[in-house]
Amino acid sequence: MLLVKVGGGAAINLAGIARDLASLDEPAIVVHGANACRDDLAERLGHPTRTITSVSGVSSVLTDEDALDVLTMAYAGLVNKRFVQLCQQQGVNAIGLTGLDGALVRGRRNAGIRVQENGKKRLVRDHSGKPETVNTSLLRLLVDQGYTPLLTVPILDENGLPMNTENDSVVALLQKSLGVRRVVQLLEAPGFLEDPDDPASVVAEMRFSELEERARTARGRFQRKLMGLSAMAASGCEEIILSDGRSDSPLSAALAGRGTRIRS
Amino acid sequence: MLLVKVGGGAAINLAGIARDLASLDEPAIVVHGANACRDDLAERLGHPTRTITSVSGVSSVLTDEDALDVLTMAYAGLVNKRFVQLCQQQGVNAIGLTGLDGALVRGRRNAGIRVQENGKKRLVRDHSGKPETVNTSLLRLLVDQGYTPLLTVPILDENGLPMNTENDSVVALLQKSLGVRRVVQLLEAPGFLEDPDDPASVVAEMRFSELEERARTARGRFQRKLMGLSAMAASGCEEIILSDGRSDSPLSAALAGRGTRIRS
Repeated sequence: MLLVKVGGGAAINLAGIARDLASLDEPAIVVHGANACRDDLAERLGHPTRTITSVSGVSSVLTDEDALDVLTMAYAGLVNKRFVQLCQQQGVNAIGLTGLDGALVRGRRNAGIRVQENGKKRLVRDHSGKPETVNTSLLRLLVDQGYTPLLTVPILDENGLPMNTENDSVVALLQKSLGVRRVVQLLEAPGFLEDPDDPASVVAEMRFSELEERARTARGRFQRKLMGLSAMAASGCEEIILSDGRSDSPLSAALAGRGTRIRS
Repeated sequence: MLLVKVGGGAAINLAGIARDLASLDEPAIVVHGANACRDDLAERLGHPTRTITSVSGVSSVLTDEDALDVLTMAYAGLVNKRFVQLCQQQGVNAIGLTGLDGALVRGRRNAGIRVQENGKKRLVRDHSGKPETVNTSLLRLLVDQGYTPLLTVPILDENGLPMNTENDSVVALLQKSLGVRRVVQLLEAPGFLEDPDDPASVVAEMRFSELEERARTARGRFQRKLMGLSAMAASGCEEIILSDGRSDSPLSAALAGRGTRIRS
């Protein structure tokens, strides 16, 4: 069983990934993003995506009611169904599901983010949180029958309401819950870069033991991503591949060794 | 097995239907619309829903590329996931699926609609068509495990592309493919009205044999709807209930006898 995370950038080659899925010789579960589509739609609807920065300096997307609707239309609507259709066209029997469907992913809403505003500290609470449990029996039921689940947000919070979550956290939870040994992440980058400004500085091989140290010196979203990968090593994951989702055959290239391989 | 069609009007009480589904003592498959949400979104995105009228006087929604995107966001995104979440909150283990997911519904694209334009006849072809086959094994797999499928458009055309279709046609195909004996349709009306302008003129009982004659004299969308119902009688359907989707407990009220009952 292969677990594949597909980034939500505009340049990600979904058609190429669908074609690659058709030639896989093992079942796959895919988790995908749609941030470019969401931001575009949010702009068109006059509710541009807002990010907030906590007092500790961490910035994140603010998911208020409007943003939750936009997210649902972009992730669960446009991108999920386009990806399903591209898969179907390649003979991959894909089924698109959010964390709501079959209560696939349940979690807990964040308590709030402490922000500084006009010199005062204040707690901002939105519809986002952490995934905690997965309906593995539904995934196994579908995979056993030859279906390829394509998963995306939203997920269910502790009160049965929809909420946003980090796809990286969903991938880590799925890896652990299903005991997956190999995870591929298809990014808008050629892999993990030694120097974020130099696409040629891809680190080809890395040890799980290096991840925490790498996370400390990494920039931006890579910091959180590397911390998440580190948790997977402790849950029986043997290999994580970070590779370019923009190439002609993103998944095949990743499995053939392109990008960054992380092993124990 | 109960087959329920839920209209896509703004006044349809999805929360009430979700609550009613929780107290059903038989499995259900639900097909829902989202036309009010679609029209609203289309307006906000600057691509208002367009209808075209054929030379024979039949008008239908034009599903061009933009309209297909809007439809996917409204039906598969917002409304499907909101309905799934309302069901989950009531303890109904709903799974939202389009006709694309697991190649659930495949069909054939319409050849085109002949329209009169500036004194000339011309063929307009859009992304809509008729459903032809259903992946019944996926539906049975899910229903057997206690899931309640909530189905909506788009579906797959003969080239594996997404297309729009009439939900009434999907319901008729599902009824036939699954051998369903009882179908409930929840509308933005109290039932079938003798006089479309008088909500008190609900026809309480009707025979299948009356449907064709009724269709001939009915107005607007009811004409096509009644023709569709007539086909179900020939496929083993024993009872069709047309009832109000706007009441407090739309499905329970329908099953308790509110609205129009059509029997052989």
